[in-house]
Amino acid sequence: MSTRGWLPVRDQDFSLDNLPFGVVRPPLGPRRVVTRIGDYVLDLAAAGIEPQLTAQPTLNALLLSGRGGDVRARAADVLTGRERLDLVHALDDVDVLMPFDVRDYVDFYSSLHHATNMGRILRPESEPLLPNWRQLPVGYHGRSGTVVVTGTDVARPEGLVAGADGVPRLVPTDALDFELEVGFVVGGPPATRISPDDAHHHVFGAVLCNDWSARDVQSFEYQPLVPNLAKSFATTISAWVVTFDALRPYLVAPPCQEPAPDPYLRATRPWAIDLHLEVDLNGTTITATNFATMYWTFAQQLAHITVNGATTRGGDLFASGTVSGPTAGELGSLMEATWQGTRPLELADGTTRAFLADGDTVTLRGWCGGDEPGRPRIGFGDATGTVVAAPARRRHAEEA
Amino acid sequence: MSTRGWLPVRDQDFSLDNLPFGVVRPPLGPRRVVTRIGDYVLDLAAAGIEPQLTAQPTLNALLLSGRGGDVRARAADVLTGRERLDLVHALDDVDVLMPFDVRDYVDFYSSLHHATNMGRILRPESEPLLPNWRQLPVGYHGRSGTVVVTGTDVARPEGLVAGADGVPRLVPTDALDFELEVGFVVGGPPATRISPDDAHHHVFGAVLCNDWSARDVQSFEYQPLVPNLAKSFATTISAWVVTFDALRPYLVAPPCQEPAPDPYLRATRPWAIDLHLEVDLNGTTITATNFATMYWTFAQQLAHITVNGATTRGGDLFASGTVSGPTAGELGSLMEATWQGTRPLELADGTTRAFLADGDTVTLRGWCGGDEPGRPRIGFGDATGTVVAAPARRRHAEEA
Repeated sequence: MSTRGWLPVRDQDFSLDNLPFGVVRPPLGPRRVVTRIGDYVLDLAAAGIEPQLTAQPTLNALLLSGRGGDVRARAADVLTGRERLDLVHALDDVDVLMPFDVRDYVDFYSSLHHATNMGRILRPESEPLLPNWRQLPVGYHGRSGTVVVTGTDVARPEGLVAGADGVPRLVPTDALDFELEVGFVVGGPPATRISPDDAHHHVFGAVLCNDWSARDVQSFEYQPLVPNLAKSFATTISAWVVTFDALRPYLVAPPCQEPAPDPYLRATRPWAIDLHLEVDLNGTTITATNFATMYWTFAQQLAHITVNGATTRGGDLFASGTVSGPTAGELGSLMEATWQGTRPLELADGTTRAFLADGDTVTLRGWCGGDEPGRPRIGFGDATGTVVAAPARRRHAEEA
Repeated sequence: MSTRGWLPVRDQDFSLDNLPFGVVRPPLGPRRVVTRIGDYVLDLAAAGIEPQLTAQPTLNALLLSGRGGDVRARAADVLTGRERLDLVHALDDVDVLMPFDVRDYVDFYSSLHHATNMGRILRPESEPLLPNWRQLPVGYHGRSGTVVVTGTDVARPEGLVAGADGVPRLVPTDALDFELEVGFVVGGPPATRISPDDAHHHVFGAVLCNDWSARDVQSFEYQPLVPNLAKSFATTISAWVVTFDALRPYLVAPPCQEPAPDPYLRATRPWAIDLHLEVDLNGTTITATNFATMYWTFAQQLAHITVNGATTRGGDLFASGTVSGPTAGELGSLMEATWQGTRPLELADGTTRAFLADGDTVTLRGWCGGDEPGRPRIGFGDATGTVVAAPARRRHAEEA
């Protein structure tokens, strides 16, 4: 239990050192912006903190304003000042909602281990990494309209899959997968040609991100362009935007890049993040890794997507790409962990999985610190989703 | 000159049969939704037509409402009723603005001729069409935040381009191109698993779309994923959203599809559009073709992107992909018209172009009908943009 402040903090993910932002619907009244403290939320507008930015249905006005740091500091003042129980709600009493309206969503492919694994699986006869991979952070735009908040069920998508007879058929995917990622939320006024060393001026904070993927749909559709339907049905994010300020003590040097990238991608600041990440499938921890292993940093990613003159908008989301570490227990997708389904994983309940089954629940977790004095734990909370049957099958089951 | 209504209509693109929607800033007062008639705009809110939807800075509220047809009918009533010159502005007196806030932007690749040409240019040693191309409308998500309205200058983008020594360098593109496309604007409440035969319930209207492309940046970055920076710097749309109702008389049967696609992509309605399209480069018409030649229709595209359960939002934009016809004068990009720059085009001023030069102005034009009685001309207006030097070069020129 924290000894600071007037609220008990049993959940150490969300101490006064964290104070992430989110959106809830209280029992009475409209949606509003809050900060989370332990198992409570502080109603920022009720506390008189920038109500024009916080008596809002999304974080977007706050993201655009560039005033997140001030709002967070004033929230900390309220929570360490005179007790004001009228300003807080227990988390159990509110609906936790999608925190912001996602503008452009870009998904990267920035883990050396993940990209190497995927290359080996999909193109076993050639070099796993294509020539551009070490020269620029490869990425593409995803569907922002289907980014959903933790707790939202994910319906198994249907898509065209190659048939044995050469005729593709529309079927519910048989190769539903998760991807463990970290997403960065853009704040501030529109910006372009951002230097990696200035990235922190344009990143409001971070969330966990599950880029659900249908591997069989993906393998049929993706050439010559890109996964589209295999990814666009849902992306789950955690509900609490952990601020860049809270993450700052955990910045570390990224892995050495060889060859050195073009100057527009070079940084002097340490932009990797010492962030522990886990994936839980139905109660079994199947992956535990660290975000600091990523080859390309969020700062390089932001520099890259703006180098051509493209502008950012507050509310843009860009995700790291699947986070996989170098060892067998650090793989950020089932595609890798089961080697395209050929080596099923055993779960604690004795069942096995090549890919996800209906009813499966995937939960991403992440936190910095909590390991030694002076490094308080900064948690992200869960990004969780349960797979439900594809609508056609569900309809069939209801009729039966 | 039209004999109907109380306004002279010199510009036959925008007669009473068209009445597209757009957004302008009048000399006094805030942005608002208007319909265009000849060289004038009718202020819909001032006319008392659904002011909660039309006294707005974008079309988005109107797009979401599903009330576009009613608003357009009432605008026609005003324009054919008692003269009310206080409700109109001359086009020259207003700023014409971006008509709507683009939510998700999907760009397709649906012209058989374009896809075949691109395959021949980029993969000369293999079949030009990949196996999935005739099975589904290939597409990907683009950057919605850089969709700009006609008249906006386009800065030559910089990007990493492969060097002769194997080291890529950040340079202003030497292969800047246009792409002639038609974009469809989604209206109505969120929808998913849309049948092609229901597509008209979800499409508010259409615009012209120039998907500017940097071919050298594209060829370095696009594997294994997709063009990203080569496209994300700018997409120019025309300012007037031509309603689906206005286009309805020009629907025709699309080309035969062989093999027949999966049932979810089959339509019984004729969803191709007899829409004449032209590209003008510095005063020379370099392309004249017809949108009816497209292999995949907008209805199939919309069915495809929602078949996996992904939902639409009012304000989504999806573009056809480059429109190229079968003959030499019908090519929708310089990549094709100059065969990757190897056969420069001669312009009317005697200069030649392999790709676009700084100062070049590209204008897309499109219209239906106007060719015989009972087929009034429905024009789209221009989607125009002028190329300006990349910022680094521009800075250098200013210093010199």
